[in-house]
Amino acid sequence: MSPSTNLTPLFEPAEVAVVGASAVKGKIGHTIVENLVTNGYRGKIFPVNPKADDICGLKVVRGIQDLPSPLDLAVLCVPPPAVVPALNALAQLPVKAVAIITAGFKEVGGEGYRMEREIERIAREHSIALLGPNCLGLVNTARRLNATFAVGSPPRGSIGFFSQSGALCVGILDWSKELGIGFSKFVSMGNKAVLDECDLLEHLAADQDTNVILGYLESIEDGGRFLHVARRATREKPVILIKSGTTAAGAKAASSHTGALAGANEAYEAAFRQSGVLRVDDVATLFNLAQAFSCQPLPAGPNVAVVTNAGGLGILSADACSRAGLNLATPSAATLETLRGFLPGFAALYNPIDIIGDADAERYARTLDAVLADEQTHTALVVLAPTARVEVEKTSHAVIELSRRHEKPVFCCYMGGEHVAAGRELLREAGVPCYDFPEPAVACIQAMYAYSERASRPAPVAANRLRDRDAACAVVCRAREAGVSEIVEFQAQEILRAYNLPAPETRLARTSDEAARLAERIGFPVVLKIASPQISHKSDVGGVAVNLGDADAVRAAFARITSRAARLAKGAFISGCLVQAMAPRGAKEVIVGFRRDPQFGPLVLFGLGGIYVEVLKDISCRLAPLTLDDAREMIREVRSYPLLRGVRGEPPVDFAAIEEILMAMSRFAQDFPEVHEAEFNPVLAWDGGAVVADVRVVLARPDLNAAIEAAGQDE
Amino acid sequence: MSPSTNLTPLFEPAEVAVVGASAVKGKIGHTIVENLVTNGYRGKIFPVNPKADDICGLKVVRGIQDLPSPLDLAVLCVPPPAVVPALNALAQLPVKAVAIITAGFKEVGGEGYRMEREIERIAREHSIALLGPNCLGLVNTARRLNATFAVGSPPRGSIGFFSQSGALCVGILDWSKELGIGFSKFVSMGNKAVLDECDLLEHLAADQDTNVILGYLESIEDGGRFLHVARRATREKPVILIKSGTTAAGAKAASSHTGALAGANEAYEAAFRQSGVLRVDDVATLFNLAQAFSCQPLPAGPNVAVVTNAGGLGILSADACSRAGLNLATPSAATLETLRGFLPGFAALYNPIDIIGDADAERYARTLDAVLADEQTHTALVVLAPTARVEVEKTSHAVIELSRRHEKPVFCCYMGGEHVAAGRELLREAGVPCYDFPEPAVACIQAMYAYSERASRPAPVAANRLRDRDAACAVVCRAREAGVSEIVEFQAQEILRAYNLPAPETRLARTSDEAARLAERIGFPVVLKIASPQISHKSDVGGVAVNLGDADAVRAAFARITSRAARLAKGAFISGCLVQAMAPRGAKEVIVGFRRDPQFGPLVLFGLGGIYVEVLKDISCRLAPLTLDDAREMIREVRSYPLLRGVRGEPPVDFAAIEEILMAMSRFAQDFPEVHEAEFNPVLAWDGGAVVADVRVVLARPDLNAAIEAAGQDE
Repeated sequence: MSPSTNLTPLFEPAEVAVVGASAVKGKIGHTIVENLVTNGYRGKIFPVNPKADDICGLKVVRGIQDLPSPLDLAVLCVPPPAVVPALNALAQLPVKAVAIITAGFKEVGGEGYRMEREIERIAREHSIALLGPNCLGLVNTARRLNATFAVGSPPRGSIGFFSQSGALCVGILDWSKELGIGFSKFVSMGNKAVLDECDLLEHLAADQDTNVILGYLESIEDGGRFLHVARRATREKPVILIKSGTTAAGAKAASSHTGALAGANEAYEAAFRQSGVLRVDDVATLFNLAQAFSCQPLPAGPNVAVVTNAGGLGILSADACSRAGLNLATPSAATLETLRGFLPGFAALYNPIDIIGDADAERYARTLDAVLADEQTHTALVVLAPTARVEVEKTSHAVIELSRRHEKPVFCCYMGGEHVAAGRELLREAGVPCYDFPEPAVACIQAMYAYSERASRPAPVAANRLRDRDAACAVVCRAREAGVSEIVEFQAQEILRAYNLPAPETRLARTSDEAARLAERIGFPVVLKIASPQISHKSDVGGVAVNLGDADAVRAAFARITSRAARLAKGAFISGCLVQAMAPRGAKEVIVGFRRDPQFGPLVLFGLGGIYVEVLKDISCRLAPLTLDDAREMIREVRSYPLLRGVRGEPPVDFAAIEEILMAMSRFAQDFPEVHEAEFNPVLAWDGGAVVADVRVVLARPDLNAAIEAAGQDE
Repeated sequence: MSPSTNLTPLFEPAEVAVVGASAVKGKIGHTIVENLVTNGYRGKIFPVNPKADDICGLKVVRGIQDLPSPLDLAVLCVPPPAVVPALNALAQLPVKAVAIITAGFKEVGGEGYRMEREIERIAREHSIALLGPNCLGLVNTARRLNATFAVGSPPRGSIGFFSQSGALCVGILDWSKELGIGFSKFVSMGNKAVLDECDLLEHLAADQDTNVILGYLESIEDGGRFLHVARRATREKPVILIKSGTTAAGAKAASSHTGALAGANEAYEAAFRQSGVLRVDDVATLFNLAQAFSCQPLPAGPNVAVVTNAGGLGILSADACSRAGLNLATPSAATLETLRGFLPGFAALYNPIDIIGDADAERYARTLDAVLADEQTHTALVVLAPTARVEVEKTSHAVIELSRRHEKPVFCCYMGGEHVAAGRELLREAGVPCYDFPEPAVACIQAMYAYSERASRPAPVAANRLRDRDAACAVVCRAREAGVSEIVEFQAQEILRAYNLPAPETRLARTSDEAARLAERIGFPVVLKIASPQISHKSDVGGVAVNLGDADAVRAAFARITSRAARLAKGAFISGCLVQAMAPRGAKEVIVGFRRDPQFGPLVLFGLGGIYVEVLKDISCRLAPLTLDDAREMIREVRSYPLLRGVRGEPPVDFAAIEEILMAMSRFAQDFPEVHEAEFNPVLAWDGGAVVADVRVVLARPDLNAAIEAAGQDE
C-alpha cells in the first residue's frame, strides 16, 4: 500500500458489515458475527445474507446495496468466485476498509492468482485499506473488536502482533491465554494483496495502545520501504520479528565473491540490524521478549546483579550472562557492608550473591533492596529454588514492591512446579517476568540492553560524498550501450577518479619493452597484471606478478604472464599487461564490494582479501546507504580485524581511508541502479592510506533481471 | 572412590537407619523418616534418637550401638560436630553405606574442611559407600526408597539423575511432577567427600532400571577416571550433562600459545566429546533430551519428514532442521503417489508436507503412515496448530498407534494452550514427546541422531607408536636435574629423533662465516634462527630470516639477527644462529602442541601457524591419548582447514604426516608427566611430507604445581 495509508477504519470502525454471514453455528460466517457480538464490540454490526433473518440476535441485511454509505469496515467470507463482485459492490458504497477471509487466491495459482490481482486493482483504485485475502481477520482489544473466525479472543495488553501465517495466529491465540500475554492489535495478514508488514509497522508504531511490536514474516514485499518504516518504528518502540525461510535465488544469480558470499539471508540480517529490528528464530523467544519489553523498564547498562538461594542456579546464571556479553559487576563497598550486616557468614557476597538455601523472604528483600540501590546494578535477576525454608509468595510481594520503588528492571527465575506456581502468578500479574530457568531471563536482559544502547545513540546520518557522477555515468552508459556486461581496467579506473578514490599509478603496456619503460617511469618495484576484458579473476590464470625490482624482471614477467594467460584462457583477447606502482611493504589486502539484492537493493560487503574472504568466508555486510558508523562497524566486525589493527608491533592500517572507500562504494551503488555488482579487489591498505588496486563492475543483464522478477512472482 | 565401589547397599538397602531422626514435624530428621514411610519403602526403618519413643509410627532406637549389625544404610542428619563421632560408631557396626545430609563442612572452610577430611578417611578405611556431606539424600523409585528431606517424591521412570547442587534437585523434583518426567535414581551428591560423579556414572551405566543418565556438575574430581568411566557408560546408554562454571586457573598458569588458547573449558569440551557425553547448557534442554531418549527409538539417519497443518510452522521446522544439520528428504515417488491419492490439491507434497488448515485426524494419520513407510524417512515430526477443523485427541491416538507400528522415532509439536492440552497429555502418557514449538523437537532429533551415529562407529583404538623413550628421557631428566625450565634447540631436536619425527637439517653456527659454511653444506636456500635458551618466541625479536639464497645473504642475516636480538632481549645469552634447510616452496605452517590440564591431563592442540592461531584463535583440541580418528578430526575441524586441502589448484598437504606428528605429541605427553607443555611450532607441511622446524618443551615448575593444587583446595 502507499505510504501512510489510513488504517483507522480497519481498526476502529464505526460499523462492521459481515458479507457472507451465516445463521449456521460452526460456519466461518457465523463465528465472525458471534465473535463481534460476544466480545462486546460497541459499533453497529450488519450481517449480510440474502436468506437468513436473524444471526446472533442481529437483524440481517439482504445485500450490500442495503448497507450504510459510506461504510467503515466490511469482512468478506463469501466463496472465492463471489469475492470480486462483492468487493466491486462495496467499493460503490463506498467502503473504507475490507478484510477478506476467503482463501483460494494467489496461494492456489491460476484463476486464484488472476482474481487476487483484480482485488488489488479495485482496492487501490478506490483507496480501500484491504487486509487478506486468505486471512484469519483482525482484533483490536481496546475497541473490543474481534473480526476473526478464531475460537476465543486474545486478552487485552500492549503487544501489537501481525503474522503472515494464519495457523500460527490460531496457535498463539490459544497459547497466549495460558501465559497471560495480552495484545493491543492482533492481525493476520494472509496473502498481503494490499496491506503488508510496512503498513502495519507504520500503524502500530503510532498506536498509543501498543508498546511492543511483534511479527512473523515469511517474506518482505518492499525492502526499501521496509527499511524506511522499520527505522522509524524502532525509534518509537521495540520491534521484534521472526523471518522464516530465506531463499538462495539472489545468491545464485551472482558472479563475484561479493555475490556468492552475501546471500539473501545476509541482506535480511543487514536490513534488520540497520533498522534496529530484533530478529529472533523461534516463537518462544518472540513472546518472552515481548513480555519483558512490555512490562519492564530498559536497563541503563550491562551490569546484572544475581541474587539466589541456590549456588548451582547462580553459576548457571553467571554462565548465561557471560555468554550473552553481560557483566556481573562486583557490588560497591557500601553495598558489601550492608550485605555483611545481615547475611549469614556462609553467604557469597560477590555477584552472584548466594543468600543460601535457608533464605526467607526478608533476606531476599533486604538483599535485593541493597543491590538495586547500588548504582553499579543496572538489572537484577532474582533466582529461587523451592527449598524448605523459602517463602515463595512473600518473596514475590517483596520483589514487586522493590522493583517499583527502584525503577530498575527486575527479572525472576523460579525453578520448580507446584511449589512456586502461586508466586510466579503474583509476579506475572504485577508485570515482573518470571521464568523456569535462568537462560531465557538472561536472553531478555541482553535484548533489552542491546535495544536501549541503540536507542541512546544519536540517529545515524548518511554522509554525502562529493563525486563526479557525470564522469562515472559516461563510462557506465558507454559500456551499457556497447552491450558490455563488465567494466574493467581503464574504464573502471575512470570510475575511481570520478569518486575521488586513490588508485596506484597504472599504465597499459602492449610489449615487454614498453612495460620495462613504463616501470622505470613509475618507479620500482612494480606489479604486472594481465590486461584482458575476458579475464575477471587474474590470479586464476597466473596473471599477476608482484615486487618486480628491475627492467629485466619486468620483461621476463611480461612474457611469462601473457603466454600463460593465452594458454589458460583460450580465446581471450589480451591487450598486454598493466604496470602498476607497488603499495608499501606490509600493506594489507581488503575487499570492498556490493551486490544488488532483489529485495533490499545494494548490499555492501567488506572482508580481508585472499583466503580470508574466499576460504574462511570472513565478511561483514550492510545495506546502502551506509552511514559512517556502518562503515566503521563493518571493518571491526570481521574475525580477522586484529590483522588490520596490527599484530606483532605492526602499526594499524589507515581505517579512515578504508571507511572512505566503503562510503564511496555505497554512493556508487546508489548512483547506478543499472550496476548489478561491483568489487574493489584488492584494496591495499597500510598505515598511511589505502588504494584501490583493481576494480570490476558488472552491469545488470536485462534478460536475467526479467527472469529474477518472474521467479519472484511464481512464489 | 576407588573403581567399582559397591553401591548396592546405598540404593537397595535391606534396612535404613536415620541417625538424628526427630519427632518434630517439619524438622529435617522427621521429614526423612516420613519420606521413607509414606513412599512405601519395604525394608526396615530404624529412627535413631536418644529421647523420642515414636517417630511416624516407628519404634525409635536409642543409639547407634542398638542398630542391627551389619547395617546396610545409615542416613545422618545430626549437627555438624556430631557427624564424625556418629560415623565412627557406625563404622564399628559395621555399616555399608552412609548418606550425610548435614551441611557445614568443606563448603564453610576451616574446621568444616578438617572434619570433612576425617569423614573421608573413615569412609575409605572402612570401605563405606558415603554420599555427601551437605546433600539432599537419594531416591531409588524401583525400591520405593526416598531417603531425602525433599517435599514430595519424584515419579518412577527410567532417568538416572545426579546433581552437585541440592537446590537444583529440589527445583527439578518440583518441576518434574508437572511435566510427568520419571526417574529411576535421583541422587544429590553434596560435597562429594567420597562418592562422586564417576561412581554414580558407573553404577547407573550398569543399572537395569536406568536407560538415560543425566547429571549437573560444577566440577569433576578425577578427570582421568571420568574419561574412562564415561567412555564405557556412553556405550551402554546416553549420558547428558550440564557442566557449569569453568575456571581460567589452568589457562593463567600457561606460557605457550597452546597454554593460552586451550583453557579449562576446552579440556572439558574435549573430555565430553571424546567420551561421547552430550553436553548441554541449560536445564530445560537437559530434560527435553532425557525425555526424548527415554521414550523414542534412535533415528537411523538424518532425514526428517515434517507433516503440518500450518505452513508457517512447517517453514520454522525446516529452518530449525537446516540449522541443526538435519535433512528434509523428498518423499519417494511411491510415497508421493500415495499422498496424491488422498491429499487435497493445494497440499504441499514435498517436505515439509503441508496437509493444510482443514486437515482432520484421518488426513494426519494417512499422511504419517505413508511417510513413515517411506524408507527415506528416519524420523517424523508432526506439527499441529489448533485450526477449526483439527481433531487434536484423535490425531494423538493415530500418532501413537503409527509410531508403535513403524518403530521409527516420532516427535510432535502442538502449538497452543487449552485446545491442545488433552492431546498433548495423551502423547506424553504414550511416550511420544510433544513440544510447544518446533525448535526443541528438532534439537532432540539432532542430539539423538548424533548419539546413534557415534554408537554405530567401531570403538576407537589408541595407536601405539614406536619410540625410544630412554633417549628422550635422557634429555628431559638432564634438563630437570639442571633446574632448566625449558628445553629448546639441540636438546629438543634429540626428542624429535627419539620419537622418529622428521626435522629439517639444522646446525648451530657461532659466527657468520661458520653460518655461511654450514649453509653451503646443507644447500641453499636456508633459514637462520637466533639460538638462545632465553628467547622462546624468536620472531618477536626479529630472530628469524628465511629464504637466504647465498653465502653473503647468510652472513648479513647472521649479523642482523644477533645484533637485534642482543638489543631487544637484553641479558639473553646468545649462542649464535641455527642454520636450517628450507621446506619446499608453498609449505604450510601448522602448530602441534599440548598443555597439561590439572583435571584431564594432556590436552593436545592443533592449528595453522601464525595469525590463524594467534589472531583468529582457530584451533582444535583433544585429550591424550589420541586415536587416529581424533587426529584426523582435529585437522579437519579448524576453520582454516581448506588451506591445507589446497586452494586455487594447490595440492593438499600430506595429512598422514601431520597425523603422525599429532600422535607422537600425544605419546610424548603421556610418556613424560613432568613435562608441562610442549609445542612444535612451526611444523612445515607440504604435499610430500611434514617436518618439525622448531620445538619447545616446558617442564613443570614444582612450586607452581603446588600453588595450583592449593588453589583448587580453597574452592
